[in-house]
Amino acid sequence: MKYSIITTSNPQDTAAVKIPWQDRPAGSGSVMWRYDNNPIIPRDLIPCSNSIFNSAVVPYKGAFAGVFRADSVCRNMRLHNGRSDDGINFQLDPEPIKWVCDEPEIGEFVESYDPRVCWIEDRYYITWCNSYHGYTIGVGYTYDFKTFYQMENAFLPFNRNGVLFPRKINGKFFMLSRPSDTGHTPFGDIFCSQSPDMVHWGCHRHVMSPKKGKLTWECTKIGPGPVPIETSEGWLMIYHGVLTSCNGFNYSIGAAILDIDEPWKVKYRAKPYLLNPREIYECVGDVPNVVFPCANIVEPETGRMAIYYGCADTVTGLAFCNTDELIDFVKENSEL
Amino acid sequence: MKYSIITTSNPQDTAAVKIPWQDRPAGSGSVMWRYDNNPIIPRDLIPCSNSIFNSAVVPYKGAFAGVFRADSVCRNMRLHNGRSDDGINFQLDPEPIKWVCDEPEIGEFVESYDPRVCWIEDRYYITWCNSYHGYTIGVGYTYDFKTFYQMENAFLPFNRNGVLFPRKINGKFFMLSRPSDTGHTPFGDIFCSQSPDMVHWGCHRHVMSPKKGKLTWECTKIGPGPVPIETSEGWLMIYHGVLTSCNGFNYSIGAAILDIDEPWKVKYRAKPYLLNPREIYECVGDVPNVVFPCANIVEPETGRMAIYYGCADTVTGLAFCNTDELIDFVKENSEL
Amino acid sequence: MKYSIITTSNPQDTAAVKIPWQDRPAGSGSVMWRYDNNPIIPRDLIPCSNSIFNSAVVPYKGAFAGVFRADSVCRNMRLHNGRSDDGINFQLDPEPIKWVCDEPEIGEFVESYDPRVCWIEDRYYITWCNSYHGYTIGVGYTYDFKTFYQMENAFLPFNRNGVLFPRKINGKFFMLSRPSDTGHTPFGDIFCSQSPDMVHWGCHRHVMSPKKGKLTWECTKIGPGPVPIETSEGWLMIYHGVLTSCNGFNYSIGAAILDIDEPWKVKYRAKPYLLNPREIYECVGDVPNVVFPCANIVEPETGRMAIYYGCADTVTGLAFCNTDELIDFVKENSEL
Amino acid sequence: MKYSIITTSNPQDTAAVKIPWQDRPAGSGSVMWRYDNNPIIPRDLIPCSNSIFNSAVVPYKGAFAGVFRADSVCRNMRLHNGRSDDGINFQLDPEPIKWVCDEPEIGEFVESYDPRVCWIEDRYYITWCNSYHGYTIGVGYTYDFKTFYQMENAFLPFNRNGVLFPRKINGKFFMLSRPSDTGHTPFGDIFCSQSPDMVHWGCHRHVMSPKKGKLTWECTKIGPGPVPIETSEGWLMIYHGVLTSCNGFNYSIGAAILDIDEPWKVKYRAKPYLLNPREIYECVGDVPNVVFPCANIVEPETGRMAIYYGCADTVTGLAFCNTDELIDFVKENSEL
Amino acid sequence: MKYSIITTSNPQDTAAVKIPWQDRPAGSGSVMWRYDNNPIIPRDLIPCSNSIFNSAVVPYKGAFAGVFRADSVCRNMRLHNGRSDDGINFQLDPEPIKWVCDEPEIGEFVESYDPRVCWIEDRYYITWCNSYHGYTIGVGYTYDFKTFYQMENAFLPFNRNGVLFPRKINGKFFMLSRPSDTGHTPFGDIFCSQSPDMVHWGCHRHVMSPKKGKLTWECTKIGPGPVPIETSEGWLMIYHGVLTSCNGFNYSIGAAILDIDEPWKVKYRAKPYLLNPREIYECVGDVPNVVFPCANIVEPETGRMAIYYGCADTVTGLAFCNTDELIDFVKENSEL
Amino acid sequence: MKYSIITTSNPQDTAAVKIPWQDRPAGSGSVMWRYDNNPIIPRDLIPCSNSIFNSAVVPYKGAFAGVFRADSVCRNMRLHNGRSDDGINFQLDPEPIKWVCDEPEIGEFVESYDPRVCWIEDRYYITWCNSYHGYTIGVGYTYDFKTFYQMENAFLPFNRNGVLFPRKINGKFFMLSRPSDTGHTPFGDIFCSQSPDMVHWGCHRHVMSPKKGKLTWECTKIGPGPVPIETSEGWLMIYHGVLTSCNGFNYSIGAAILDIDEPWKVKYRAKPYLLNPREIYECVGDVPNVVFPCANIVEPETGRMAIYYGCADTVTGLAFCNTDELIDFVKENSEL
Repeated sequence: MKYSIITTSNPQDTAAVKIPWQDRPAGSGSVMWRYDNNPIIPRDLIPCSNSIFNSAVVPYKGAFAGVFRADSVCRNMRLHNGRSDDGINFQLDPEPIKWVCDEPEIGEFVESYDPRVCWIEDRYYITWCNSYHGYTIGVGYTYDFKTFYQMENAFLPFNRNGVLFPRKINGKFFMLSRPSDTGHTPFGDIFCSQSPDMVHWGCHRHVMSPKKGKLTWECTKIGPGPVPIETSEGWLMIYHGVLTSCNGFNYSIGAAILDIDEPWKVKYRAKPYLLNPREIYECVGDVPNVVFPCANIVEPETGRMAIYYGCADTVTGLAFCNTDELIDFVKENSEL
Repeated sequence: MKYSIITTSNPQDTAAVKIPWQDRPAGSGSVMWRYDNNPIIPRDLIPCSNSIFNSAVVPYKGAFAGVFRADSVCRNMRLHNGRSDDGINFQLDPEPIKWVCDEPEIGEFVESYDPRVCWIEDRYYITWCNSYHGYTIGVGYTYDFKTFYQMENAFLPFNRNGVLFPRKINGKFFMLSRPSDTGHTPFGDIFCSQSPDMVHWGCHRHVMSPKKGKLTWECTKIGPGPVPIETSEGWLMIYHGVLTSCNGFNYSIGAAILDIDEPWKVKYRAKPYLLNPREIYECVGDVPNVVFPCANIVEPETGRMAIYYGCADTVTGLAFCNTDELIDFVKENSEL
Repeated sequence: MKYSIITTSNPQDTAAVKIPWQDRPAGSGSVMWRYDNNPIIPRDLIPCSNSIFNSAVVPYKGAFAGVFRADSVCRNMRLHNGRSDDGINFQLDPEPIKWVCDEPEIGEFVESYDPRVCWIEDRYYITWCNSYHGYTIGVGYTYDFKTFYQMENAFLPFNRNGVLFPRKINGKFFMLSRPSDTGHTPFGDIFCSQSPDMVHWGCHRHVMSPKKGKLTWECTKIGPGPVPIETSEGWLMIYHGVLTSCNGFNYSIGAAILDIDEPWKVKYRAKPYLLNPREIYECVGDVPNVVFPCANIVEPETGRMAIYYGCADTVTGLAFCNTDELIDFVKENSEL
Repeated sequence: MKYSIITTSNPQDTAAVKIPWQDRPAGSGSVMWRYDNNPIIPRDLIPCSNSIFNSAVVPYKGAFAGVFRADSVCRNMRLHNGRSDDGINFQLDPEPIKWVCDEPEIGEFVESYDPRVCWIEDRYYITWCNSYHGYTIGVGYTYDFKTFYQMENAFLPFNRNGVLFPRKINGKFFMLSRPSDTGHTPFGDIFCSQSPDMVHWGCHRHVMSPKKGKLTWECTKIGPGPVPIETSEGWLMIYHGVLTSCNGFNYSIGAAILDIDEPWKVKYRAKPYLLNPREIYECVGDVPNVVFPCANIVEPETGRMAIYYGCADTVTGLAFCNTDELIDFVKENSEL
Repeated sequence: MKYSIITTSNPQDTAAVKIPWQDRPAGSGSVMWRYDNNPIIPRDLIPCSNSIFNSAVVPYKGAFAGVFRADSVCRNMRLHNGRSDDGINFQLDPEPIKWVCDEPEIGEFVESYDPRVCWIEDRYYITWCNSYHGYTIGVGYTYDFKTFYQMENAFLPFNRNGVLFPRKINGKFFMLSRPSDTGHTPFGDIFCSQSPDMVHWGCHRHVMSPKKGKLTWECTKIGPGPVPIETSEGWLMIYHGVLTSCNGFNYSIGAAILDIDEPWKVKYRAKPYLLNPREIYECVGDVPNVVFPCANIVEPETGRMAIYYGCADTVTGLAFCNTDELIDFVKENSEL
Repeated sequence: MKYSIITTSNPQDTAAVKIPWQDRPAGSGSVMWRYDNNPIIPRDLIPCSNSIFNSAVVPYKGAFAGVFRADSVCRNMRLHNGRSDDGINFQLDPEPIKWVCDEPEIGEFVESYDPRVCWIEDRYYITWCNSYHGYTIGVGYTYDFKTFYQMENAFLPFNRNGVLFPRKINGKFFMLSRPSDTGHTPFGDIFCSQSPDMVHWGCHRHVMSPKKGKLTWECTKIGPGPVPIETSEGWLMIYHGVLTSCNGFNYSIGAAILDIDEPWKVKYRAKPYLLNPREIYECVGDVPNVVFPCANIVEPETGRMAIYYGCADTVTGLAFCNTDELIDFVKENSEL
């Protein structure tokens, strides 16, 4: 491999599993390509679900575990525990996760969505978009994907897309997020915050903004996607970007590379998107024209990467890339 | 049957017809399911039509008659007379209905859409969304689906979805409706009004509101659908509810049960939707992601119900349910 | 007098009182002029009031009685009973009117504002903007300005400015109103509705629209003001019109003459306004730039008219005109 | 032929080519019909393209040349040179057109889209939507589709859809356009301007407005499409019209006939659309529900017309009609 | 004088008049100060006027002439001819200007406002905001302030604040303007256009933008004010800038200096405003918080300048400055 | 005194100064009353200021010191250091405060406004609304009102009105704030956050919301005002509330009492406002109709309180109340 992979959302378990994989289709020149049997999770996998998407998967004990956004047939947004042997065929608990929380003020939330899962030190941390008098970032953890503990919300409302770095940096936890407002926010920058204890957050730094001023795939807002991957070139951050057409938002997937020690400093940022809505299951659904990445699994020794992404806010898809190729793509197409 | 069916939009003719029907597909757990050859009415059934949807069908003389919304290739909204032997294959008059009306001030309207048809006492009343310096509820009647008489508009603008109850209650006519505004209204409650003479309306009562404050399938607005069905549990009201995504409105179908004598009092209200846009003809069309119910036909002795609903504001679909099952579903999943 | 005055909001009591009056100031060419000691009612006349405006006064038993909008220091909108010997100096009850109402569903409203008072046949009817799941027209009556009875709301929401005609026409009550929406409505036409019993309303007719398409003082919305006056030329209707500047709404006062038997037919409509915000108490206050007429008292034998109008949604002013002059002004400056 | 064709976007070359053509499908009654192998240009025809649509084709030296809107995978809007032997299978240059321009102030624009190409006198003029402190109409020309020269922008911002007439009228160049604003403009009329030198423009005349006030396919905005065709009945202008549903804009294709000498005077205007979004490639894509015509090629001796139109802002489609039939359709269905 | 004054809106007549003047008040450090008897023109100077503001005055035959915006009591915007002996006390014609125009298509406009007057070569040109299917720049001229001739509108809609330069530059007429939209435009840059004949306009150049990105007095939009003054330092351009508070627009007056030969190039731009709404007649009126300059008169030999400006869209004020001081102020406080 | 005062924004210095004071005017029944010579700070106190308002004053060394919002004549928002002997007549530094900050990323902000000052333990902390890729809460401190040190911003954007509690609670610093969005935020709740080190913040709790659903003086948004005062009844919090009229925002002053140990729990909340815009300097200015409290000084032994508040975003006013009376008022008029 050209570039080494140092830390991912779950370093110690990755080696034990065979990550989902398909080679790039013949004739394709794309840096990222889709699984040919997408979507891998249908909208009605569990009886009560209207849709299952924007979900997080990690290797766990030789197989795969995850936290899944399953909107109910009431259209309530809820998180479900799930698992898979191959990372492609999943079973989900029919009932939402029940969080252990000593503090009823925050524990009795009613909406939760867009989870990420990240192993740090001794446990799997889960971050999600949580409702507490507005949407903010919920934080919790599990040791075993059986019992889930809820901690304090990280920020004041309004915030979405809280994504942890997979290790402490200079002794502190780091989290990316996207401050927002009360609705379908028409703006959004990525920020980076720090915490000594996963409870109190500060030293907020601006990371990057949408590319406004002309039409780009990311001219309305951007937000962090999967847990960043530590590589020899820096933190590889896959993110989503939104363009506003006369018929609404259009979500694509992009990538950037951040400085290892000061991850709010952007070293490279790919000007083109990596993947955008083209397939019928990405263009048609509860929210047309959405691809939204929330997790990836990397094979450190090969650089193979599987990306889990929500499709049209309805189903879950799988895409692939090669880390070396992706890093080169970002560097060669970089425009800060 | 567990619950008896007492009054529908056309009690005396229903027994004489064989209602359209398909059993629930094997493996389905849904309380409502689609006709497998949907859509039953294509957008271009008549030469001048751009789309045919949101229409009302009733049993009539051993077959089926109805009033249909057919938007022309000019995209003008107009009502057409139509008929069917089986309730599935329809013939529509190529020209819109011409209303007999003594009062030119109201008779010369230019837009009319979303009709409902309801037998009360001696005739079929038709209500629709009518243009008179803003949209309001037009009212008319026919004895024979040949000559159509227009009466006074029920309300001041702005109003949509006027739906009559199929019998007088305490000596007065009752109508459900949804007050609105001049555009693509972003709010909407269901109200109930009373009239001694089908001309003057008063004693307006609030029935129910959207479920706001968190994401639900009916968090933006709700409006009455087909004519309510009188059952031993109360008036069974099927209605539409709207959620606003970042890419526009999403219309689903739900149900509630109202008090028999004071039908503005909600006894039960199902928290989940019954049907939402999932099929390509519901998700793609002139207005993506719309299922909009306007009529149903019930077999009182079996409880079988056929629901006619508009799909993507483009074509007309058919769905089925069983009244007993539906009533149980509403009661068991009720959240007021 | 050139034109005779036939019916006003209180025909039998008017003769018994000396209406408030000042002659037109020397040098003025205006058809309507202000009382030189305006405002006549300060914002804090009663201890709990933030503002007193948009109120209705009628002659009563040789003096004056009225229903007043007094917003509290909580900024809740409430109606208060009040009285005056001279029509200029008023006393208001410190507590809001308590309505006698058998129907708690409508009797327990929380907001009420912009009242009008109109004698018809045997009692004083009061109409106002009432909150019932949105603003609509509340209706009540009193015989003695001591006990106030609440009837059914006239219309479904959303409506404002319900103004009764001071006698039945062709055996029915008639009411003007302005359908609106849920907020600071940016549109508004005047409609006319009919009722056999003051409870059920129908036969809705459009009266007139804002003058859009270019800048006019009434290009955004219009609404009826005081009770119309029956004259030999038709119903003299004073109304408010609104223009939207880049800094908000600007309310002026205008006039039109309606057909006696079909009062939805406009015979004359003055193109200029009669009065617009110019004085400091009209331009500065809780809502800058508002003059809003709600009542007038006419001396039939002289044609003198006193108009009560709200100023800047804060205080109450008094203006004067001569009915003959006003009718001539409307006819000579008419543009339908 | 019933009506003669006098001038098109490229009179001298048309005869030399065989225009793309398919007969109307059996059973169809439509005045315009689609190529059965649409779309003819896929979104990814060139490596860097996200989408290729809203493009202009002309006959050139016995084959076809054109200027194409190809949005890059960065979603930047750019113009590419292209060619075809049959008008159906196209090759595009992978790099955008580089304009020769002496004036860096205007030559260094960053966005360009929706081109039209028109032969006048001695060269092919290209007009497009150009970014210069807002979108306005860029003007350029080529003799050979190899070297492209940029001239001054025709108008001040904000403007879109600049479309030249294919000959001078009374000694001056004429251009249709649609003034707009800074965003997804919710209004738009067609205007006509004149120039003695293709640099300075004046004598601006209003041509026609959207049909507002009720629902029509063109009730939000309209804009000129391909270069008008001079016929014995007047200038045949194909244009786009937009309707706003609750889920966004819906673009259809219509037609009108303008006066030969005073082309701002509309002689006939078809009330129905000619084509609207119905096929999956028109309803699903980066912008759902768009058909947008930018070019046509006419066979003067037969009246056969091929129309190139953008589909869902993603791919390029081809449609056909017969000029005689189209002119009759416009005249018979005319409503000014 | 430090800087020479070369060309103004009326070079040949200025010397013959005594311009209105007051010295700077003792203790004031402002570069611009108000006339102590402002407003000089009351809102009701003529019988039909609601307000008189945003008007243009030039020296004429030893006295002063001008074109005045007088909104009528219908709130129609109209231009009136007027005159004054001292530049402070004005007489206005009670009827609006009637334009001589051969072309009824443009001559029958209904709204006209915000005039400027500029002597070039042999006549006084008048430019104003004119209604022609949207607001654009009307152009006309007079030799004698008795007969007024209307020419073609300069631009397509939507545009406001057309301001001519007082001499040809490189053989062409030059005009500043501010492209806008259909309403209370929330954006606006100054552009410069050129014409060989005062009819056809082209070679459009961007001059300057609002200072966005943080709060400034000109962060929403800017537009040219009086006719620029040619000085030895460049064209001295006084302009208006708008800030949007939570309660609407706030208009101030600023200044910049443009290159003599390429007047779209800004040499200096004062960062502070020169004058902003502070007096009661500027803060209270039909549109609160507006100072809007439309004309100035300069004494070339002393540099004294009198500025006429609209106040609160209601009355007309007068302010003063010294050209030398103003130029120094612009240069010393310049931020491009 | 009925209730004891325990901690204020500056306990140790208060006793040493004579706080500004006037008795309640005779005849007034208001719980809060104005200084009769308001405004105490004019808009142009320093040469470069457009307006001085929303500022914080504390007792300091036997006199008064403060941090003042002075918007420049460029309308840039900046903080200035100032002082006074009597708390009524102030001197301000003509240049803005220059912050000592080691971290240029946050130290180079360009906008700062609405400061509060609070003594805690050993220094005066200053919080303000700071620009850092959106508005958030800046934090700094001074020992001597000569040197000012800037710390990390407390929160991610978007936030306004950061107000510290004047002592640690359970060992942590506490701050009230109002999360907002990018513009003139039309919503706003008060939250409470905790910090062990004044850098990292967490344990965010919701305190209270606007009173929506009907018209109230605080139906749009609310935000904390001066530093809360610890009393025997709880934390006395004075805050601002906003009502949205058709002509914009209207800011009033209200009060609530919070629990001592868990200050996010509201014990009492006065339903009426304490003070609202009524005087000309509160109703007319850069932003009409604003009273905005930012500081108060309390005499613990008498309960006298002086409140400094911004008026119309233009000048600074002074008001008074008695703590005992205010606490009683809040308790007696409480509605949670």
